[in-house]
Amino acid sequence: MASSRRNVYFFGAGKADGRAEWKDLLGGKGANLAEMTNLGIPVPPGFTITTEVCTAYYKNRKRYPSGLREEVRKAMARVEKIMGLRFGDIEKPLLVSVRSGARQSMPGMMETVLNVGLTTKTIPGLIARTHNARFVYDAYRRLIMMYSDVVMEKAAGIEPPEGRAIRHLLEREMDRMKEARGVKDDVDLDADDLKELSEVFKKTVKKVLGKPFPDDPYEQLWGGIGAVFQSWNGKRAIAYRRIEGIPEEWGTAVNVQAMVFGNTGDRSATGVAFTRNPATGEKAFYGEWLPNAQGEDVVAGIRTPRPLNKKGKRGENRHLRSLEEEMPKIYRQLDGIRRKLEAHYRDMQDIEFTIEDGRLWMLQTRTGKRTGVATIRMAVEMAKERLINQKEAVMRVKPDHLDELLHPMIDASKEKKAVLLAKGLPAGPGAGAGQIVLTADRAERWAEKGKRVILVRNETSPEDVHGMHVAEAILTAKGGMTSHAALVARGWGKCCVVGCGALTIDEKTRRIVVDGKVLKEGDWITLNGTRGHVYEGSLPLLPADPAKNPYYRELMRWADRERRLGIRTNADRPEDAAAARGFGAEGIGLCRTEHMFFDPQRITAIREMIVADTAEDRRRAIMKLLPFQRKDFQGIMAAMEGLPVTIRLLDPPLHEFVNLDKKQIKDLAKELGTSPKLLEARIAQLHELNPMLGHRGCRLGITYPELSEMQARAIFQAAAALTKKGKKVFPEVMIPLVGTAEELLNQKEIVARVAKEVQKETGTRFPYLIGTMIEIPRACLVADEIAKEAEFFSFGTNDLTQTTFGFSRDDIGSFLPDYLAKGILPNDPFQSLDTGGVGVLVEMGVRKGRKSRPKLKVGICGEHGGDPKSIAFFHSVGLNYVSCSPYRVPIARLAAAQAAIAENGKKKR
Amino acid sequence: MASSRRNVYFFGAGKADGRAEWKDLLGGKGANLAEMTNLGIPVPPGFTITTEVCTAYYKNRKRYPSGLREEVRKAMARVEKIMGLRFGDIEKPLLVSVRSGARQSMPGMMETVLNVGLTTKTIPGLIARTHNARFVYDAYRRLIMMYSDVVMEKAAGIEPPEGRAIRHLLEREMDRMKEARGVKDDVDLDADDLKELSEVFKKTVKKVLGKPFPDDPYEQLWGGIGAVFQSWNGKRAIAYRRIEGIPEEWGTAVNVQAMVFGNTGDRSATGVAFTRNPATGEKAFYGEWLPNAQGEDVVAGIRTPRPLNKKGKRGENRHLRSLEEEMPKIYRQLDGIRRKLEAHYRDMQDIEFTIEDGRLWMLQTRTGKRTGVATIRMAVEMAKERLINQKEAVMRVKPDHLDELLHPMIDASKEKKAVLLAKGLPAGPGAGAGQIVLTADRAERWAEKGKRVILVRNETSPEDVHGMHVAEAILTAKGGMTSHAALVARGWGKCCVVGCGALTIDEKTRRIVVDGKVLKEGDWITLNGTRGHVYEGSLPLLPADPAKNPYYRELMRWADRERRLGIRTNADRPEDAAAARGFGAEGIGLCRTEHMFFDPQRITAIREMIVADTAEDRRRAIMKLLPFQRKDFQGIMAAMEGLPVTIRLLDPPLHEFVNLDKKQIKDLAKELGTSPKLLEARIAQLHELNPMLGHRGCRLGITYPELSEMQARAIFQAAAALTKKGKKVFPEVMIPLVGTAEELLNQKEIVARVAKEVQKETGTRFPYLIGTMIEIPRACLVADEIAKEAEFFSFGTNDLTQTTFGFSRDDIGSFLPDYLAKGILPNDPFQSLDTGGVGVLVEMGVRKGRKSRPKLKVGICGEHGGDPKSIAFFHSVGLNYVSCSPYRVPIARLAAAQAAIAENGKKKR
Repeated sequence: MASSRRNVYFFGAGKADGRAEWKDLLGGKGANLAEMTNLGIPVPPGFTITTEVCTAYYKNRKRYPSGLREEVRKAMARVEKIMGLRFGDIEKPLLVSVRSGARQSMPGMMETVLNVGLTTKTIPGLIARTHNARFVYDAYRRLIMMYSDVVMEKAAGIEPPEGRAIRHLLEREMDRMKEARGVKDDVDLDADDLKELSEVFKKTVKKVLGKPFPDDPYEQLWGGIGAVFQSWNGKRAIAYRRIEGIPEEWGTAVNVQAMVFGNTGDRSATGVAFTRNPATGEKAFYGEWLPNAQGEDVVAGIRTPRPLNKKGKRGENRHLRSLEEEMPKIYRQLDGIRRKLEAHYRDMQDIEFTIEDGRLWMLQTRTGKRTGVATIRMAVEMAKERLINQKEAVMRVKPDHLDELLHPMIDASKEKKAVLLAKGLPAGPGAGAGQIVLTADRAERWAEKGKRVILVRNETSPEDVHGMHVAEAILTAKGGMTSHAALVARGWGKCCVVGCGALTIDEKTRRIVVDGKVLKEGDWITLNGTRGHVYEGSLPLLPADPAKNPYYRELMRWADRERRLGIRTNADRPEDAAAARGFGAEGIGLCRTEHMFFDPQRITAIREMIVADTAEDRRRAIMKLLPFQRKDFQGIMAAMEGLPVTIRLLDPPLHEFVNLDKKQIKDLAKELGTSPKLLEARIAQLHELNPMLGHRGCRLGITYPELSEMQARAIFQAAAALTKKGKKVFPEVMIPLVGTAEELLNQKEIVARVAKEVQKETGTRFPYLIGTMIEIPRACLVADEIAKEAEFFSFGTNDLTQTTFGFSRDDIGSFLPDYLAKGILPNDPFQSLDTGGVGVLVEMGVRKGRKSRPKLKVGICGEHGGDPKSIAFFHSVGLNYVSCSPYRVPIARLAAAQAAIAENGKKKR
Repeated sequence: MASSRRNVYFFGAGKADGRAEWKDLLGGKGANLAEMTNLGIPVPPGFTITTEVCTAYYKNRKRYPSGLREEVRKAMARVEKIMGLRFGDIEKPLLVSVRSGARQSMPGMMETVLNVGLTTKTIPGLIARTHNARFVYDAYRRLIMMYSDVVMEKAAGIEPPEGRAIRHLLEREMDRMKEARGVKDDVDLDADDLKELSEVFKKTVKKVLGKPFPDDPYEQLWGGIGAVFQSWNGKRAIAYRRIEGIPEEWGTAVNVQAMVFGNTGDRSATGVAFTRNPATGEKAFYGEWLPNAQGEDVVAGIRTPRPLNKKGKRGENRHLRSLEEEMPKIYRQLDGIRRKLEAHYRDMQDIEFTIEDGRLWMLQTRTGKRTGVATIRMAVEMAKERLINQKEAVMRVKPDHLDELLHPMIDASKEKKAVLLAKGLPAGPGAGAGQIVLTADRAERWAEKGKRVILVRNETSPEDVHGMHVAEAILTAKGGMTSHAALVARGWGKCCVVGCGALTIDEKTRRIVVDGKVLKEGDWITLNGTRGHVYEGSLPLLPADPAKNPYYRELMRWADRERRLGIRTNADRPEDAAAARGFGAEGIGLCRTEHMFFDPQRITAIREMIVADTAEDRRRAIMKLLPFQRKDFQGIMAAMEGLPVTIRLLDPPLHEFVNLDKKQIKDLAKELGTSPKLLEARIAQLHELNPMLGHRGCRLGITYPELSEMQARAIFQAAAALTKKGKKVFPEVMIPLVGTAEELLNQKEIVARVAKEVQKETGTRFPYLIGTMIEIPRACLVADEIAKEAEFFSFGTNDLTQTTFGFSRDDIGSFLPDYLAKGILPNDPFQSLDTGGVGVLVEMGVRKGRKSRPKLKVGICGEHGGDPKSIAFFHSVGLNYVSCSPYRVPIARLAAAQAAIAENGKKKR
């Protein structure tokens, strides 16, 4: 690191005081300008006032360090010398830009002043130099607008009333001028118009702000520098820093750089480019340019930008000449710089350039943004080019990038223009378009007729599952990220938006009201489940097919080589298991058995069991379920042949199965040969005030041992049947909601006995394990005792988060938004594991568990199993595997690899 | 300890091999017989076969150690010598008893054989010695009955079908004999009858059991010894050991002792006595005796026992002569023994004696059972007599003993004979008698008319509180020990029985059905809330008034000197606070503010707040509550002047305040000027699936800061008003349900700001603290962070137990009974703190909290604050205080003292 005595770092003519690594001192922009200069790339000369000056400025009651002015003057002299111009010179005036540049990009949060140094005295000289009076007066009026706004008003702390900001007043003058001239666009004003406008501007500034617009170049320069430093503590910047967690002490640097102009004539031009295609990732120089134009013209959209090269021609710009054709020499120079920058920065760069009178200047380079598809392709190709290594390639792909490949997405260009109806929580990624239906039954009927439907409900329940399954997407008005709809949708990789509070659903009239707008059943909507957006109408979707993407396949191979965590999936049906296996799942970490109970053929048996008066009746009813469950388990184990399958015994409270209305009760009573009154009484008896903390999990198996026995029998009979067919099965029976070793022991005895019996009855032998969910705090506290009885642990971090925080995930909607807005919680703890609280219990559980049983297999099967940040934590505490919904498996594989690589990186350091 | 080689320990004639301390080896009975012998007290000689023999017997396939027979023979010879008799001798036969005696009393669980040594050959000798043929034949037939049952059937492992046990068959023979003789009672059979019966008995034994009744004395002796050892592993004994946690390895000793007879004539007698009065504790020799009788006659109730002394004469035995009058010399000897025993054992003794032909023999001494009142008086008086020290006195009183003083109780003699209707959970101690009413409103009306009522409900809610308050007692069909009814009742020291599942309440017909019996509203019942019993009719109650009991006052003074824990109370009303102060509370540890909201005048304001659309409307509604709350707090702080008062901000979910039916909604809508439909929608919106984990606690104050502000203002305005009156107040504001430091900080800022404002506005200064409940697991995990913001912690162990176990205390009724029955939980964790799980979190919370803030004040205000076992734990982890309901305060003071004394005892050891 350079001495902190120095305040100004010069760059220009192939030599810079700074380097790319010194971002903390010089800010990102300044460091990169220095780096490019040192690489011999033509950069307009300039200098960077360090971030330390900013810090000192605020510490020292907004006074600059002594010597700063002298350093700035010296640096200006060097710029003048290189450019052959002089700041404030009448004949050959130098203009400069004054820009902010913090350590971390804070786009649009701080101020910029361009064309500094343009005064009544220097205008003629610049006209002489550029032969373009219109350009010069346009630059002058821009300077006045920018300067009066940024320096004279904002930095001075003036807060004018609504609509009375100097910027608005000047814009109004300009509009008046255009009206007077009978023209529409700024560009239609000529040199004289703009000259006159400048005078009007200056008068207005004096009148409104009580001070004249400064006509001294150095006064302008220091005004600009001061305004940039001031803007570090502007309202917008402070708010942004708080959100992004950027410390106040970092401060911003100020970059003062010679202005170059792409709009001085036909030998001038300006452009932006990417060193590779940011949409596809293809290794091809890609960009746009405009002759005789300023940087902002390229993005403003008034003129159609031209393709950079022949390869870049397509559709709308096919007929326009490329830079490659127009200025072949300059293009070759630019292409050389592109290669140099990419080789140097080892990543795709987003560059800005200006050509002034046939001379190329690079104004900016930075790592370019790109789509997910492009990210993956670039990472893989760069690794193959040996630009980066495979580990770096794996680290470069963010989990969100993979999401793009795994789900259909709305065509981005169309989404921009679509009508946003409402926003909800992004519960299931990807996109879906379809016709609104309000009940699961109708969803099924409409789908049978070949219609594409979106099921819209206040909230969903297990009884809606058939409708959810056929829907393109699911939208609910209530519920959070771990509501029933969200869980089921993610499990299927289905698009889902939940908690969309703006919806009012009227099932009777089959209408939805959103923000005053009425939609009927049958109307089309489109959901973006990755962002939580609901759009009106049917938007075009781009399909997903990751397996066809060779770069994805290669990248995942590399990731698998790096990771230490195993990746399993949460799946309840053979189809889901097969899909997950396709995505790379190495087993099932959680097979919930309760979903299997809602099938109409079975639900009666379970209801019969619930209302049974005697243990004998209960047993008889339960045993009716045995063949169904056996078939379920056999299907899943077959789909996962050769891999472990963890099956959780029945978990939810029984009343979930008897959520019936009057008529249904009457029908059921008839079916069961009992009276509706008695049945109603029994159902009422099952009602719980806090079902989450009620009679569920292993508590069911303990009070109704025949239930555990039936499930164990179904599992082992399925295992025996497959074993007989020569298939390898590894069932792992998981006891839910265990809080004491005694609970586990009670259930383990039943399961182990049944395993023995079934093996004897069928004459087969197969391996199996008996373990437990760790999902309530007490289980973590006594994990050493529990591990004596458990062959594996699987953390149920959903429930563990609920009980550790005392949050019901069904009910947090009333306060969580406030908690996030007020910064009381950094994020939704059901999405990303609360490592400081819940994580402490997980770590304790692992440590205590392995103390009793050093080889204890430990996994996690909560929703956090698919969350990259949480996966990094699970890696760090030494879990054996994470289990997540099928469509999260690739993301989990990647996140696990990144956690391993990051850890090794740390160890090496 | 004696060498373990020795199998037999002799006692007799003033010298014994054993000592009272050797209970492990000799069993309680044997050790005490040895001790009495050594004290020079006349004990019939005998010997003890050690518990180690029993252990060896079972280890060695039921074979005795070699040498045992020889040792027994030698010991018998010593007994014969002392008694001047010989075992099996024709002229002067010795009879012995064979009794079990384990380390810990197992009443009735093991076997006894009396009169061993009586054979056809020794009968004439005994008749000659006693001059009483009837006595001898009666002894003989008793021996046959006992021996054939205990030795020949049970110990032999014979399990006859129902009603075919030898005992029953012999009893039937005896009945036949009585019928044939035309007599009713056993005593009406004469010597010849009994002689004949003995022969019948012997024939029956031979026929049924296939073996003759042994006529050899040593065969009888070894049969008896074997039967006692066998009975250690009898079904009853095994079951008892499992319940009491007695290890199998302990084994039982066998005591063989010369028989002495109190029924040989007029100079013989038998009796039982207590060294002090076990009912009142008075220091007076108290007992009963019968001339010419056997021990069992005293308790059998056929003859009215006579008073031991003149002082003991009362009512029914006033006319009977006392032992003091009848045998003054023997009485004086007995009184001397009584003094000796009490001085020696340093506690009240329960003794048995027999007088055979004018000679006194002591058969047993043991520490006597006594009532609570007696326990306290004895402990205090013995300490004053310097028999024990004050610490010992404090240790001797069990918390249940105090309960007797603190609540009215059913007259024990009447309770025995009362008709038990049903059993429930003992939720509020003491007793209550009254007329059944089924609604709170009628309870209030009836009470106004001067009726004594018992409110009977399925369960209670805050809306029943007025009815609960006027009721003598509360009975609910549902709910557990921490249900609403239980909590409120305990808070008031009111008798309450909950979870009485046998009740079916029909509000329409105003009837209750219990086990087929129909009770109407207005019928009388009596509850024993200490035991959970419900009796038919009105039983007489004994009133409570501890302050009038000087022994209680003295004992509590001693206890207060010993304890380190402070004792506070949970009280929401000035009357309760004053009552608690009377019981010795040193402050309020928990003042819940929500109960104050249910007052009809206030509930509308809170409902108005709940349904408010804007923050402004909400604020206005809330502020209506300010004067009410200020008054509440002022009353409580005045009642607790000079002591700290911890006030918890609003905790329960808001929907608890809008539990309304259709009509109420309509009325409220009218009152609030809104539509019933809108109101209904708003109420529905508040519904939560798991309210326990929902929008409550500090989450309310964070989303509605004006609520916390109003409450803080009410607290501090009350404090200011009292300060102005010259009163000392110490308000402590407690933020509930905190899980992150940020939550506490958010609320603390509001409270601290309001404190400042109020002090400024009123020109007063008063001390105050801001702290937090620690009641969810996460708070314990991050207690170090929370302690940075908290001036005190108060553990809410009710909620902490709920979240740590994942148990809803409202819903555990469905599985907790099973858990207790199956030994999965040792006890209800809501009654006695789960030290292995929840306790680990408490300990962690204390440790981490004090790490950040070494002087952090830490208390506990859950229901466990009144539970002695839990109090010992709280003492051990270094809490500053426990807070419990007013009527538990004396118990907490005692338990805290006992914990401190026990700890010092341990340290010294």
